[in-house]
Amino acid sequence: MATSVESSADVVDGFDTEDPRAVRRAIREGRHRGFTNGLARHHVQGNLVAVPAAHADDFEAYCRANSQALPILGRSAPGARDLPALGEDLDLARDTGGYMIFRDGAHVDTARDARGVWRDDLVSFVLGCSFSFEAILQAHGVRLRHLDEGDVSAMYVTNRDTVPAGPFAGKLVVSMRALRPADAIRATLVSARFPQFHGAPISLGLPSDLGIADLAESYGGHGLTRLEADELPVFWACGATGQIAVRHANLPFCITHHKAHMVVTDLRLPIESLP
Amino acid sequence: MATSVESSADVVDGFDTEDPRAVRRAIREGRHRGFTNGLARHHVQGNLVAVPAAHADDFEAYCRANSQALPILGRSAPGARDLPALGEDLDLARDTGGYMIFRDGAHVDTARDARGVWRDDLVSFVLGCSFSFEAILQAHGVRLRHLDEGDVSAMYVTNRDTVPAGPFAGKLVVSMRALRPADAIRATLVSARFPQFHGAPISLGLPSDLGIADLAESYGGHGLTRLEADELPVFWACGATGQIAVRHANLPFCITHHKAHMVVTDLRLPIESLP
Repeated sequence: MATSVESSADVVDGFDTEDPRAVRRAIREGRHRGFTNGLARHHVQGNLVAVPAAHADDFEAYCRANSQALPILGRSAPGARDLPALGEDLDLARDTGGYMIFRDGAHVDTARDARGVWRDDLVSFVLGCSFSFEAILQAHGVRLRHLDEGDVSAMYVTNRDTVPAGPFAGKLVVSMRALRPADAIRATLVSARFPQFHGAPISLGLPSDLGIADLAESYGGHGLTRLEADELPVFWACGATGQIAVRHANLPFCITHHKAHMVVTDLRLPIESLP
Repeated sequence: MATSVESSADVVDGFDTEDPRAVRRAIREGRHRGFTNGLARHHVQGNLVAVPAAHADDFEAYCRANSQALPILGRSAPGARDLPALGEDLDLARDTGGYMIFRDGAHVDTARDARGVWRDDLVSFVLGCSFSFEAILQAHGVRLRHLDEGDVSAMYVTNRDTVPAGPFAGKLVVSMRALRPADAIRATLVSARFPQFHGAPISLGLPSDLGIADLAESYGGHGLTRLEADELPVFWACGATGQIAVRHANLPFCITHHKAHMVVTDLRLPIESLP
């Protein structure tokens, strides 16, 4: 498995980090190689799952049956690398800056650019992502310590089954944020208003409720997992659920974004100011 | 301190337990001597605080400054025992079935009927109560184990100061319900829609967040305090905050309802069916 993706924030050349078009261009040209959280914070970001056209309707049905984890923001035409409704100049094969390539259900490569392996029958789905609601939460005064510490939220594979559709099935993945009680309540109320970005939390307070034995053992080993004494773990349904499902489906071919390298769209978030 | 109030559910004679007028009549005539939770469940219940008219405006200001704990549902004319906006035949001096009488800030008596000590200068406040939102939560499928077990919710005096007004001040009192995580989230979302019944929780998960060292030591020693392994404590602001404040104010005279003996009103709750 060749890995050419940088995972730490790394702005090589200056660009307007709040302009989604400038962010996409910087990623495309290799001037930004880090995560996309903290960038274009007033705009929606999304998960990418590109599947062969023969499986696209089943995958859409799977997303709709598990819409809290997989809210569909856009679906491309077969083979199309553009999705103008989400960004006029969007190139789905280049603009996340991080791709996971799967063959026969196995993760075979990680790349910064997917043009070399893109196929004419790929249908791309862009799915709502917690990076969007994190910006909304911050705008409502919720402290997100993992962002203060330059980290991402941790993810966990839970003991909850998703609703299967066609070959797609698997356990629900959640993202976790360490919040103080008042912020947990505020975050619950605010996020519930945004079903397109996973909506309200699905659990909180007790990792065992989701079959999580040890918070330190996050999915992929990423993210902030250590709670302060005055914090609760709060769990939201996560778009990474889609990666579990495409692995489970053993598709002959599939591309997803690589963790925390998201599709940055031109869709504006309903926020005015940010810290 | 003479106590003539029964605290266990005790229906002596049959009456329509869902009809608020029938409930009030049964209490007034001594046919029901128990708590009012579980009665007239489609109708609003309230806390009672009756203060001398000289202190009424200060008490109203205190309630408005701490409206999550003390949402005003009604204020009587001085000396009036009726409050027609809340119940056509309501007699505030008889219809809760349980009164605490304070002189110079000290609790001097508990009585089933307050007519003997009622004063011509008393202004009564009826304040939103969690019994109302408990019915709403149940209608939304939230399991309230303390009700299943025939108990009331536990209350705690917290480490949080209320906003003072005139002579009124003191710590915030909360009520606690033991909820499973998904119910804690649902209860948060539902209760937030009803600011007149305390609105959203103010804390959850960590008793220490409110300075509560031991859940077993509830205010007054009442209520369900033991959590199951799959439950979280969820805390709402509580109308008992008003009792702390009137004690703190050292009023020459004051009457409040006695715990869980509430003012049963004719105001209809926005619920269709109940378990």
